[in-house]
Formats: sequence, structure tokens, C-alpha cells
Amino acid sequence: MAEKEIELKRGLRDVYFESTESSLVIGDVGRLIYRGYEIHDLAEHASFEEVMYLMLVKRLPTRTELDEFDGTLRSNRAVPQEVLEIIERVKDAHPMDALRTAISALAASDPEVDDISHEATLRKGLRITAQTPTIVAAHHRIRSGNAAISPDTSLSHAANFLYMLLGERPDEETARLMDKDLIVHLDHGSNASSFAARVTASTLADVHGAVVTGIGTLKGPLHGGAAEGVMKMALEIGEVDNVDAYLAGKHERRERIMGFGHAVYRAEDPRARHLREGSRRLAEKMGDPKWFQILSRVEEYMRPYAERGICVNVDFWAGSVYYLLGIPEDLFISIFAVARVPGYVAQVLEQQDKNMLIRPQMRYDGPIDLEFVPIDQRG
Amino acid sequence: MAEKEIELKRGLRDVYFESTESSLVIGDVGRLIYRGYEIHDLAEHASFEEVMYLMLVKRLPTRTELDEFDGTLRSNRAVPQEVLEIIERVKDAHPMDALRTAISALAASDPEVDDISHEATLRKGLRITAQTPTIVAAHHRIRSGNAAISPDTSLSHAANFLYMLLGERPDEETARLMDKDLIVHLDHGSNASSFAARVTASTLADVHGAVVTGIGTLKGPLHGGAAEGVMKMALEIGEVDNVDAYLAGKHERRERIMGFGHAVYRAEDPRARHLREGSRRLAEKMGDPKWFQILSRVEEYMRPYAERGICVNVDFWAGSVYYLLGIPEDLFISIFAVARVPGYVAQVLEQQDKNMLIRPQMRYDGPIDLEFVPIDQRG
Repeated sequence: MAEKEIELKRGLRDVYFESTESSLVIGDVGRLIYRGYEIHDLAEHASFEEVMYLMLVKRLPTRTELDEFDGTLRSNRAVPQEVLEIIERVKDAHPMDALRTAISALAASDPEVDDISHEATLRKGLRITAQTPTIVAAHHRIRSGNAAISPDTSLSHAANFLYMLLGERPDEETARLMDKDLIVHLDHGSNASSFAARVTASTLADVHGAVVTGIGTLKGPLHGGAAEGVMKMALEIGEVDNVDAYLAGKHERRERIMGFGHAVYRAEDPRARHLREGSRRLAEKMGDPKWFQILSRVEEYMRPYAERGICVNVDFWAGSVYYLLGIPEDLFISIFAVARVPGYVAQVLEQQDKNMLIRPQMRYDGPIDLEFVPIDQRG
Repeated sequence: MAEKEIELKRGLRDVYFESTESSLVIGDVGRLIYRGYEIHDLAEHASFEEVMYLMLVKRLPTRTELDEFDGTLRSNRAVPQEVLEIIERVKDAHPMDALRTAISALAASDPEVDDISHEATLRKGLRITAQTPTIVAAHHRIRSGNAAISPDTSLSHAANFLYMLLGERPDEETARLMDKDLIVHLDHGSNASSFAARVTASTLADVHGAVVTGIGTLKGPLHGGAAEGVMKMALEIGEVDNVDAYLAGKHERRERIMGFGHAVYRAEDPRARHLREGSRRLAEKMGDPKWFQILSRVEEYMRPYAERGICVNVDFWAGSVYYLLGIPEDLFISIFAVARVPGYVAQVLEQQDKNMLIRPQMRYDGPIDLEFVPIDQRG
């Protein structure tokens, strides 16, 4: 065999498997673009619903179009009773495992489950998108011994999610902060979970299966983010005065500082700034400004490392926002999932519209001519 | 942007993402090798349990090792009551959607769910492997209005699967035929669903998530096989005397003949022959030799096309075997899944043992500098 001479592209780094018009990460200058628009414009001036429309329909909506789109989402938030009963039966699972199971179960009652046309996939994708926050919140309520809270159709996607999760309708500023958080997490070019969802879709499997693949892949610690780790660090530090000594110790032991550095960004993660100010305001409002002060000092201390490309990433401020909102750490990846599910749908639609089965090769390095010895003659 | 000049490897054809020692498909001569052994030796002389051991432990077992391995599988076949209750709640789903949901739900009660060490992954993989036939059978029983049948630990993996599915303990010859069917479907080099499972595992997500990804991907019509189509064709033909006219008509209309041709094999699919004789014997035993005669005549008629690489594939005979066993067509992919799940586990172990995140690139072909116009100023 000449197999051993075949060149391996391990991890498929720097291999381009497809073209896209969904989003672009320009790592060296820290830019993130959704369908031609700068993430900063979208985070500052658009709503999550508006950005979902942009990603799924490929242009920004008029007011009338947005109202109709948003109405569809609002009217699809409830999940079937059977799915609530399923969530009850996996209530002790990790929130991402419960979410994966419940989205998979939604296929059972979806009237268009096996229709993989563009239109049906978009309709199903909107239903899954609308139901994802309901599932995350219901699972958390149920595992905490509370009843699930029914969706409030008068609230936005972000506000309703916080309401169902925490049991209180958020004020406008807090709702808008969660809205921004969802916007900046919606899509991110070719990432491992969107890619996995595309592989599933490329066999002409349906969007429920593709989103389930995305959720299962997002759960992995190399992908689902370090937001959990940032607040653990802040809690360990405890007081602003401890920051410098804590980080100096970390550096001495060559340990990683959570919330800094990114696989693609060599400049500041363009998503981080939209949560920084929110974190400050939230900390003040909660009468708990210490955490913002600690994280600000960490950021300042780390500034010299920015020249080497080790910059604040989106997890750094997201973690503190979630913490200040009173959301348990094991739910941080689920919030990421709430934002990313419509991103999976957008990428699945793109994959289906010019589909080619995604099936790379592996080089076989094993033997090929072992002699089979019957079991009772084996040593 | 110079992005447009980037070379695309659409579908990742001919790109090698990793090395493997699990299995090798040599398409031009029609060979399939599992860890150095010819598929023919394994299908003729080994049991499915023995081949699972080979794939997971990387060598053939002694009798004592096999007994212990088999004992572990037999003692793990039952699924928790909660999972049966979940199956009840998705009973109207496609069998693959029910299987995907139930395997996802198994994570909730697995004591080692988040331990991704080699040893824990192997133990979890064996539990999932042992439980997969139980789930497939329970879902089919429940959707048919029958009670699920508890596993019989005195039976082999294949025999117990048929027993739980059909409600009768199979005779030895039938059990051995299903055993062979599972052996030849266990692994197949780099295939779309095993690749997708590896992408999930490459984020350090757990094996439950990776297998769920595999199941969701296997469901796709471009991957999960054409076994359903073959028997539909045989039923349409109806009588041996109709074969030639039926196929001539198909050719005239340039329609595909189900069960012929394969993405990789240019010679006879080495898996097909192991089911051909079984199909003949089964048809005789059932007093229903007509289907074998029809399919034999189809095979004969198609022989001239073999020179162009259009040969019988594994689905051709598998479909008739399943049909003669009385298994409904929408369960054919689930049987494939019962065989392939330990293959996913073997590939996930291999991925984890020398892991690198699998994350190819996409070329962005969209605009990058659209001006954001506030919603109420949009035309």
C-alpha cells in the first residue's frame, strides 16, 4: 500500500469545504460580519429577531416583515405536553443533554419532519428556534423543583427566555442586554458545531437531526466556551486587591487565564465590548459592583499581552453577565445554544440549497492481511 | 478580499482528515478489511460479539475474553424505565428519530456521562451498544400497540434483537443470518455518519453525544442505504417473468436500479455475498421463494453493467432478508444503526486517543461592508 504517503490534513485546518454568505470572522483585525453587516451595527441598532430574519432570509426586514416573522416565533414557543414529560424524565441530566433530547423529541410531533424543501426547513427551523428557550427554561425549572413557566407572547425572544428561566419579567435594560448577548453569539463562520450540523444535513437528513448534532457538538469543552471558567476565576480572586498577585501566580505556573485568547481572533474579540458595559451597569444595579471591578482589573493587567494576540474574548464578559443575572454556571452553554440554534438553521439551509455530501477520507495505517485464527486456537 | 481565489474542496472529497486503523474499503477490487482481517473471514467464522471485540479492543479475543465481554453486553441490555416512558411519548416518530431521542436520553442516567477517558468511553460505548437493539425493538412494539419485550440474556446480541423485535426466538440459522448482517454493517472506513460522530467527539463532547450525531446523520437518504427501495422494486415487479421488461423500462427512462452501484465500490460489494445465500435459504424456509427468484433474475440481468462498475451492493440482499423476516421497511435503517453503533464507538475512541478539533474553513463569498439602515427607514 502506498497509503502512508498520503498527506494528512489533520483537523482539516486551512481546508475550505464550502463557500458561505452567512458570516465572516476576520481574526487579525477582530471583525465579525453577518451577511455583510458589521456585528457592532447589529448589536447596537437591531433586535435579535431582526438579526435572525437577516440570517435566515438573507436581508434585513421591513417593519411589516419583522412583525410577521416575530409573530410566527411568538406563536410557536410552547412545547407539546409530551416533550415536557420527557424533560421531567431527564431532569437530572446536564442541561445540554436535556436540550439535545428534547429537540430530538420535537421531531415526533412536527407535521413536516421529513420534508427537506427549503420552505419546510425554514418553517421547522423557526419552530425549533422558538421552542429552544422554552426547553432550556423548563428543564431548569423542573430540576429545581418548580413548575415550568408558560411562554409570555407579549415579550421578546430574549425577555421571554429570562422570564421563563428566572420567573420574573426582566426590566427593559436587562432584556436588551440578553438580546445583545444572543445577537453576538448567533453565528461565527465555520465553527465545529455548525460544521457538524452541515455534515448531518449533507446526507439529506432533516433539520431536527442537524440541530441535534449541533447541540451535541457545542457541548464539548473545546467548543462551548469558557464563560463558566471566568466567573470561577473571579470568585477565586474574591477582592480587587488580590487580582495582581493571583494573575502573577497563574503566569508563574504557566496556567491559562480564562476569557483571554481565541482560536481565530488575534485582536479584541469584537463581541466582547457589547457585554462589557452591560456587565458594569448590571453589577451596579445589583449593588454588586465588586465583580465588575475585579474583571476590569484583570482586563487591565492583561493588556500588555494583547500585542501577542492574547485579548479579551466574548466569554470574559458573558460569564459575569450570566452570573449577575443569577443563572447557574452549568446553564451558560445552554444560553449559547439558544443563540446559536437559528445559526445552525441558517447554515443548514445554505448547505441544502447547494448540497454535496460531506465525506472526507481517512488514511488506513493498519495491516491488511492478518490470518484469521479460529477462537479456540488463539493463544 | 482575495477570498474568491481560495480553492474549495467541496464535500471534502479526496481530503484525508486523519489516519485510522479501524477499517479499510478497497473499492476497485471490492475488499473490506476490519483491523487487518478480510470481511469474508469474519462473516463466515466469527460472531458479531467477536467482531465488536476486535473493533473496540483492536485484536481478536480469546474464549475467556469473549465470554467476559459478551457477559458485559448481555447484562447491560435493559433500558431504564424512564427511557421506555420517553419512547412511549415519541412512539409516532420515525424509528430513527425515536432511537436518536432515546440514546440521547440514556445520558441522563449514565453514571459516567461526562468522563471522556478511554476506559469510561469504552464502558459507556458498550452500554449504548447493548441498549440500542432494546430501544429499536421497544419502540416498534410500543408503536404497534404491544408491550415491549424484556431482553433474554440467554440469547446472542443478534438473536435477542430479533426476539425483542418480532416476539419469537429465532432458529439458529436465522439468528446467524442476522449476526452476519450486523458484522458486515459494523464499520466502513470514513463514512458520513462516523465522520460526523468524530466531529462531535473532537470538541471533547462525550460518546452519547457522538453516537446521537451518528444516528441523526445515518438517517439521511444519501447515507442510510437503499435497502427499503430494493424490496419496493421486487414487489412492483411481482413475478419473475416481469423482471426483464421492468428493468428495460427503467433503463429506457434512465431511472436508477435500487441495490446497484456504490460510491466507493467499483467491483462487487464484498458484503453482498454473505446475505445472498441467507436470502435464498430464508425464502425457501418461508415457502416464499418468489422474491429470491425475482432478485436473482435482476442480478443476472444487470451482470453486463458490472464491467462499468455498477455491481450489486449490500442493500440488494439485505432488503430481501429483512422483508422475509417480517420487518417493516421503515425499520431497515434502524437495523443498520444496531450494527453501526459499535462502529461509532470504535471511531470515537480512535478520535479521542489522538484528538485534534475538526474544524475546516468556509470561503466567504458575501459582501462585507453593507451600510446598516434603521428598520423604519427601510423601503
